[in-house]
Amino acid sequence: VTEAVRARVPAAVVPALERLVAFLRIPSVSTDPAHAGDMERAARFAAGLLAEAGFPAVEVLPTGGPPAVWAAWTGRPGAPTVLVYGHYDVQPADPLDAWVTPPFEPTVREGRLYARGASDDKGPVVQALEAARLWLETTGELPLNVLVLLEGEEEVGSPHLATFLAAQRDRLRADVVVSADGAMWRVDEPSLIVGAKGLVSLAVTVVTAAADLHSGRHGGAAPNAVHALARLIASLHDEDGRVAVPGFYARVRPPAPEERAAWARLALSEEAYRCAAGVRGVIGEGEYTVAERLFARPALDVNGVTGGYGGPGSKTVIPSRASMTLSCRLVPDQSPAEVAKLVARHLTAKAPFGAEVTVEVLPGMAAPYLLPPDTPALAAAEAALRRAFGQAPLYVRMGGTLPAADHFRRVLGLATVFFSFSTADERFHAPNEFFRLERFELGLAAWVELYAAMAEHLRARRDGRCASST
Amino acid sequence: VTEAVRARVPAAVVPALERLVAFLRIPSVSTDPAHAGDMERAARFAAGLLAEAGFPAVEVLPTGGPPAVWAAWTGRPGAPTVLVYGHYDVQPADPLDAWVTPPFEPTVREGRLYARGASDDKGPVVQALEAARLWLETTGELPLNVLVLLEGEEEVGSPHLATFLAAQRDRLRADVVVSADGAMWRVDEPSLIVGAKGLVSLAVTVVTAAADLHSGRHGGAAPNAVHALARLIASLHDEDGRVAVPGFYARVRPPAPEERAAWARLALSEEAYRCAAGVRGVIGEGEYTVAERLFARPALDVNGVTGGYGGPGSKTVIPSRASMTLSCRLVPDQSPAEVAKLVARHLTAKAPFGAEVTVEVLPGMAAPYLLPPDTPALAAAEAALRRAFGQAPLYVRMGGTLPAADHFRRVLGLATVFFSFSTADERFHAPNEFFRLERFELGLAAWVELYAAMAEHLRARRDGRCASST
Repeated sequence: VTEAVRARVPAAVVPALERLVAFLRIPSVSTDPAHAGDMERAARFAAGLLAEAGFPAVEVLPTGGPPAVWAAWTGRPGAPTVLVYGHYDVQPADPLDAWVTPPFEPTVREGRLYARGASDDKGPVVQALEAARLWLETTGELPLNVLVLLEGEEEVGSPHLATFLAAQRDRLRADVVVSADGAMWRVDEPSLIVGAKGLVSLAVTVVTAAADLHSGRHGGAAPNAVHALARLIASLHDEDGRVAVPGFYARVRPPAPEERAAWARLALSEEAYRCAAGVRGVIGEGEYTVAERLFARPALDVNGVTGGYGGPGSKTVIPSRASMTLSCRLVPDQSPAEVAKLVARHLTAKAPFGAEVTVEVLPGMAAPYLLPPDTPALAAAEAALRRAFGQAPLYVRMGGTLPAADHFRRVLGLATVFFSFSTADERFHAPNEFFRLERFELGLAAWVELYAAMAEHLRARRDGRCASST
Repeated sequence: VTEAVRARVPAAVVPALERLVAFLRIPSVSTDPAHAGDMERAARFAAGLLAEAGFPAVEVLPTGGPPAVWAAWTGRPGAPTVLVYGHYDVQPADPLDAWVTPPFEPTVREGRLYARGASDDKGPVVQALEAARLWLETTGELPLNVLVLLEGEEEVGSPHLATFLAAQRDRLRADVVVSADGAMWRVDEPSLIVGAKGLVSLAVTVVTAAADLHSGRHGGAAPNAVHALARLIASLHDEDGRVAVPGFYARVRPPAPEERAAWARLALSEEAYRCAAGVRGVIGEGEYTVAERLFARPALDVNGVTGGYGGPGSKTVIPSRASMTLSCRLVPDQSPAEVAKLVARHLTAKAPFGAEVTVEVLPGMAAPYLLPPDTPALAAAEAALRRAFGQAPLYVRMGGTLPAADHFRRVLGLATVFFSFSTADERFHAPNEFFRLERFELGLAAWVELYAAMAEHLRARRDGRCASST
């Protein structure tokens, strides 16, 4: 049966892309209140896709923030159920002038579809839905029960998701979550992500005076908020880029030997990483390989800084106020709340003379996530990838954060398998985000396989059997 | 005769203020190209004031930038000539929400006139013009020949002034320049400014990657432009706030012993300065008094910094680019070009690993300025202040910059005497700039005296006589 569905993939690519392009035209930027109307439009558009695909139950549900989109096909009573997760919100598109073509006018160039959200996460979401549509159109049913949940707050840390999951527990009864968010490490190496980093963000403000001062009349005697903030930022890392906040690394669990061995097989040299990431040098903990730094070591980055005059021309003031946001990416067994405290304590202790420092923990904390290696859904995902790629995937962790996985575990007790065909170099969160068209087709086929493999592996586990291996 | 003119000052205050208020309503922000039309309006308004005051020759002259306003009353052939200088442009008004009343809607509260430009420099300019008007209305003439030059680029460093002075040399033949720009140190201590600091500004950009990167996927291995810029900023000063750029202080000329003695009489304690400036601590070179730091020591301040995401909400990127503008306030015998080189060399040498640093010298360099103590016009200004205040003024230097004084010396060979009744605490360049109404009246009277005292002292010097002392 799966063969018949897969055979229809080639003809399905273009119509699926057409729907993706329409989805990408909606600037569903969750971080900017000005786009609240677009969030609503995007949610309704996604609901329309699900209904068209053949899901008999589709709802747009309130969350307290942007709405969630829910759908269910439960035509196999007693069969296993997967909950497909993704998000319809996107990152802001600025700086706009860095885009070759406008972020919300999807454009194909050299086999790549350019648009904000193409790769993170509308492209991967559409693949999951279109694969279900192919099953439903070809066979009239799905190999197992499928629930879909698309949220609109992933890019702001899913602040309402835990409450929503708890409130909608009855609509979300499943055996496992399959996330259409996440990304493969690189295009020539199929991989399965078994872990994601945690996240905690802080807003820091430094005040040195009641008002900005004339730099001529007060220079040399008045403290400067930008100087003070710069000293604080400089104190966060040593010269190599190692985090210098006391206690920051204390609870870091070393990766398992087999994980380290698998990452060593990636053979990711500093130079290869430097070129792939487009950076001018590779920094960080020299005692770890680049892959280990990215997968298994925590990081702290200032995400933005502002202070003093930022308008056109110049203005010779001594800034009285400067601020930054910073985020920490965490690994097991670090706790976001504990790390936030360590960083806040460090910044307060390091406050330069004449500077008042305030630190606020921003919403959107997420615990680090690591999937147990014997999760049956992982074996199903591996089988689907083997069939699609003809080779065994590498088990890796992602440097990104998926707060949703943490919420699914805590609230619903469900493991999350990441199954996405975006690639780590596709400029998520940056200008000129794109999705590779070849991966769109390949991922569509893999999702077709995945529904079948999940049905088989989850049922086998339930029956105490071993699933057939490919 | 002077008595008769002074007697008319009380009745002249309100009409003069009315004209000032109309002048202040024009948002002549020179640093922002969006205000080019307002610059033209402000120049024509000032020309109108001069014509109304009784100057027979008034012209608005092109400079290559905002126009200059020129006027002449030369009714005393053979008598000395003063060139009154001021500027009609103002600093940007942002942050707008920090203003109690809008910056371009002049408002009086508790004896203070609040508006952008009230104190720097439209208020002081109007005083000089209204005093001339009083002379002309009362006596039909001025005690000496008076030229007026108002420029529109003081707040951006007077980039076209030197060329303009050279081209218009014939219209600007004078014995001395009297500047209506500058400020008194404090309200209870009449002072004469004999020096001003030099200025050079730099724009610095740090680039670490081709594009902003996802902080989850790249944290711990990719360099962060904000971290790199912060390290550069932190390297510019030591912990006390002393400038740490090698060679920065090398050419600083120590103040004369009589200057230091005069400043010691100011008895400006760190605590008194801290309260007056509204700062949370006093920083800088502890081996110098606060007055010495402000008057005779150079300073380096970052005026603004920007990097990474600065929009609403948060965005977890690793910034690939960060930038700042900084300005150095210089004292004799520092050279702006040489200091710019030292700072640029320091920043380039300190470039953190993985960061490309570019440094650009911004337009508007000004050399430091110090008036020879035997300048006759200084004695005239002192005499006028003695008459207006009933006490001898203190000779001080200003921390601010007056590039114009440097240009007048270099291009026209003229000394500049600063004669302004704004006070250093009136929030120039900051929100809620104001001008004290009591100083408006007092300055009007002092300018009436100044024209007479200048006539006497400059003629006496020319004749080899000593002017009468009061």
